[in-house]
Amino acid sequence: MTYCVGMVLDKGLVLMSDTRTNSGVDNISVFRKMAHWQVPGERIIAVMTAGNLATTQSVISQLEERTKAPNERRNSVYDAPTMFQVATEVGQLLRETIQERQDVNGQQGQGRFTATMIVAGQIKGMEPRLFLIYPEGNFIEASWDTPFFQIGETKYGRPILIRAYDRTMSFEDAVKLLMVSFDSTLKANLSVGLPLDMMVIERDQFEPSQSRRITHEDEYFQTISAGWGDALRNAFDALPKYRFPEDD
Amino acid sequence: MTYCVGMVLDKGLVLMSDTRTNSGVDNISVFRKMAHWQVPGERIIAVMTAGNLATTQSVISQLEERTKAPNERRNSVYDAPTMFQVATEVGQLLRETIQERQDVNGQQGQGRFTATMIVAGQIKGMEPRLFLIYPEGNFIEASWDTPFFQIGETKYGRPILIRAYDRTMSFEDAVKLLMVSFDSTLKANLSVGLPLDMMVIERDQFEPSQSRRITHEDEYFQTISAGWGDALRNAFDALPKYRFPEDD
Repeated sequence: MTYCVGMVLDKGLVLMSDTRTNSGVDNISVFRKMAHWQVPGERIIAVMTAGNLATTQSVISQLEERTKAPNERRNSVYDAPTMFQVATEVGQLLRETIQERQDVNGQQGQGRFTATMIVAGQIKGMEPRLFLIYPEGNFIEASWDTPFFQIGETKYGRPILIRAYDRTMSFEDAVKLLMVSFDSTLKANLSVGLPLDMMVIERDQFEPSQSRRITHEDEYFQTISAGWGDALRNAFDALPKYRFPEDD
Repeated sequence: MTYCVGMVLDKGLVLMSDTRTNSGVDNISVFRKMAHWQVPGERIIAVMTAGNLATTQSVISQLEERTKAPNERRNSVYDAPTMFQVATEVGQLLRETIQERQDVNGQQGQGRFTATMIVAGQIKGMEPRLFLIYPEGNFIEASWDTPFFQIGETKYGRPILIRAYDRTMSFEDAVKLLMVSFDSTLKANLSVGLPLDMMVIERDQFEPSQSRRITHEDEYFQTISAGWGDALRNAFDALPKYRFPEDD
């Protein structure tokens, strides 16, 4: 499993991903699930991945290769004129990669090589945009009605995102919110694990204004992790007490 | 989907279940998912169900039938000498019911008729006990290490249960906790719906000390549902602010 969240704010984009991969509970590793490409002053494009690791690494490597010799290769993330076309390309690459593995492995391959991705970024002259890419290669785009996407183990960390997200929030508050959401998920699902990767893409900067790895030694994350339990219990205690009806 | 929780406290057992069943999003109905049988002063046994409705109704009906003419029928919930044997019987009945539908429907039936159950209760002279019954007919029992079981759509409502459960809590606080957990689930998953059924089984009473249906008109539930969002946001605001490191 995996947990990644991409979020649109008025001020720009915030991304966070965990780094645990596992094939069974006795075979766990740390892999980065967040990649990005940038052209200073012109564009920044970030991708987060969930699903079969061979599939997602293959897609990221192909995207990377295309940027290395752009003259010889079509459809580099450096060349796409819009974020919509970047999402289209990533979707097509993802679908083809999954399809190829399934074809080679026949019936045994059914559903085994699937993956999902979040694509986020901005190209000069256009708005920051956020997409969720399905294994079938199609995708949806975030809007102010649905301003964040989660992939992987999405459920445990969703209630706090729904309740506390605010498009006008600062990047600092957004990172804090993501840490709470990730902490709830980490506590509930062993297949999501530290360290976390975090990236902030400020509007019209075309480079990560923050890009950090949050390890288990991160003091702020420890504070959140320890404090959120107490905060939740206090919130629970602050709600009015239940009384059984007298007539029961 | 469904959401049911059974919980052991020092004082006894607390159960809550939703009532929504759906076959597609355009075919939703209200069905009770909590049943119970009691012998005053001697035993009370409650069952909650999640999964294929025809399967779960069949199991409950068979349990009910056995109690009607106990002299002619074996293994009534009224006769089982221990809660362990009640769980064994329910498990066997569940497994047989699923197996029968699968056999009749062949390959088309694979995995379609599955269900999971929570069995809770107390028989005089013994402790209150709580079991989670799997579709395979086997089961696990709650302990103070794992003092509650959830079935159905378990993830959204789990973090608050983990953080706020306390074995010494009052029945009132336990009901409040369950309402918060159900509210988080209701807000996230359309296949879980009001009204809710709630039952409190006080130790050594052998009858429900509380048994209520909580509808969308329930004022307390409305208060919790409206207040929990604010409480969560306040809890979030109360955590220390994040600051980006200066050297980034």
